[in-house]
Amino acid sequence: MKALLPVLQLFILATFVATTHGSFELDIADQIIHLLRPKPGAGGRHVDDNVSCLSWRLGVETNNIIDWTTVPAACEGYVGHYMLGQQYRKDSEVVAHEAYLYAESQNLTDDGNNLWIFDVDETSLSNLPYYADHGFGVEVYNSTSFNAWVLEGVAPALPESLKLYKKLLALGIKVAFLTGRGEAQRNVTETNLKNVGYDTWEKLILKDSFYSGNTAVMYKSSERKNLEESGYRIGNIGDQWSDLLGTNVGNRTFKLPDPMYYIS
Amino acid sequence: MKALLPVLQLFILATFVATTHGSFELDIADQIIHLLRPKPGAGGRHVDDNVSCLSWRLGVETNNIIDWTTVPAACEGYVGHYMLGQQYRKDSEVVAHEAYLYAESQNLTDDGNNLWIFDVDETSLSNLPYYADHGFGVEVYNSTSFNAWVLEGVAPALPESLKLYKKLLALGIKVAFLTGRGEAQRNVTETNLKNVGYDTWEKLILKDSFYSGNTAVMYKSSERKNLEESGYRIGNIGDQWSDLLGTNVGNRTFKLPDPMYYIS
Repeated sequence: MKALLPVLQLFILATFVATTHGSFELDIADQIIHLLRPKPGAGGRHVDDNVSCLSWRLGVETNNIIDWTTVPAACEGYVGHYMLGQQYRKDSEVVAHEAYLYAESQNLTDDGNNLWIFDVDETSLSNLPYYADHGFGVEVYNSTSFNAWVLEGVAPALPESLKLYKKLLALGIKVAFLTGRGEAQRNVTETNLKNVGYDTWEKLILKDSFYSGNTAVMYKSSERKNLEESGYRIGNIGDQWSDLLGTNVGNRTFKLPDPMYYIS
Repeated sequence: MKALLPVLQLFILATFVATTHGSFELDIADQIIHLLRPKPGAGGRHVDDNVSCLSWRLGVETNNIIDWTTVPAACEGYVGHYMLGQQYRKDSEVVAHEAYLYAESQNLTDDGNNLWIFDVDETSLSNLPYYADHGFGVEVYNSTSFNAWVLEGVAPALPESLKLYKKLLALGIKVAFLTGRGEAQRNVTETNLKNVGYDTWEKLILKDSFYSGNTAVMYKSSERKNLEESGYRIGNIGDQWSDLLGTNVGNRTFKLPDPMYYIS
């Protein structure tokens, strides 16, 4: 971990620079990410004879491995290198590209009812600077320290999602952010999104503190149901299967990679 | 490709040996697979600057890339090494292990109504000897030559699935095979399954030639609906998302890897 800290300091600095020069977000986001390549070939070996971290990650991404609380300790190095290396970026790019191809192929009627749902954490915004300092998911989730990070409002954009967002807007598709973040974090979330280049949206849906559902699947299904009943046709992208399963999932769903945590 | 042929001849020979010594299927299946490692480190690099085959494969496995007809030409070598190397086996092992952990955790009532659905091709049986001779999915699917291969009835078991099958039976769970193969291939499929160690099953469901549905999703959903209406509680494993999506998918589904072909 410690070897990564100078890289992360550069990353956070560059993020700050990026957020103060809004018109070049995409280019700068790309440059930032190039700073995030500590080693070539961060493609994935297994760490010891007992755990194939590559197989574990594939199991997670395909929803075969569910309800896990932390990344296996033996995979901290693997997940860290994956997240900071180029493979995470390439994997995200393929997903965003497929989403765009799908949206473009629909020959959408521009009746104002086409809406694309973006999850926030690890989809629109990246908490990688936080997780890089907390074992890339090996440490048990700590809501106090994570919320303190969120309240700083300095999460960078996931560059592939930001590019997709801009291209969908250019197709005349509206965007809604649907997040498990609570209403108490509305202001900081709005500011963070705007600072990194998400300039406009139709809705930013945060979880009401009175919401009584048990899981993200239930919460997000319920909110999407409201949107569909308002007449929206939905596309949907997120890093968690709980963004994409349940009811009213949208006409098509796209799963970004996230080997750092699991939300049911 | 040509460099792999001697390995495949050994594989086919060993498969034949295995099928004539039924009581040691599992051990021999493992030994066969060890012959299938042409190179160490078959873990996945990208083949050229434009195509990350690893990202393509992840996109396929996560159902982000759909409706594709052939593996990208640049990825033939990558997919071939993945399929013949140890990573495919490790990936499959993780899926089968998760499936078993799930089944075991259910503390099932042994009322005879617990049923696990296995797909056949690339789940119970492996057509890798055929695909290795046909570009690992780079060549356009040829039903004539593929059916000729099926009719030979010499497809080996996918060892991880065979192990899972035996462990589920030991838990008192019944097994049904549900396949897109047609009724005309019932006899050869039965014989092939039995020869490689699948000794017993509750049902072997093949596609009736009168079936009028358009997609595997519709066909398999309809058959699973029949099973659930007969009172079965279903678990479900397959290599295609069309085995696992639709209706009546089962209480939990497990996705085995298959970067060689796509069935909608």
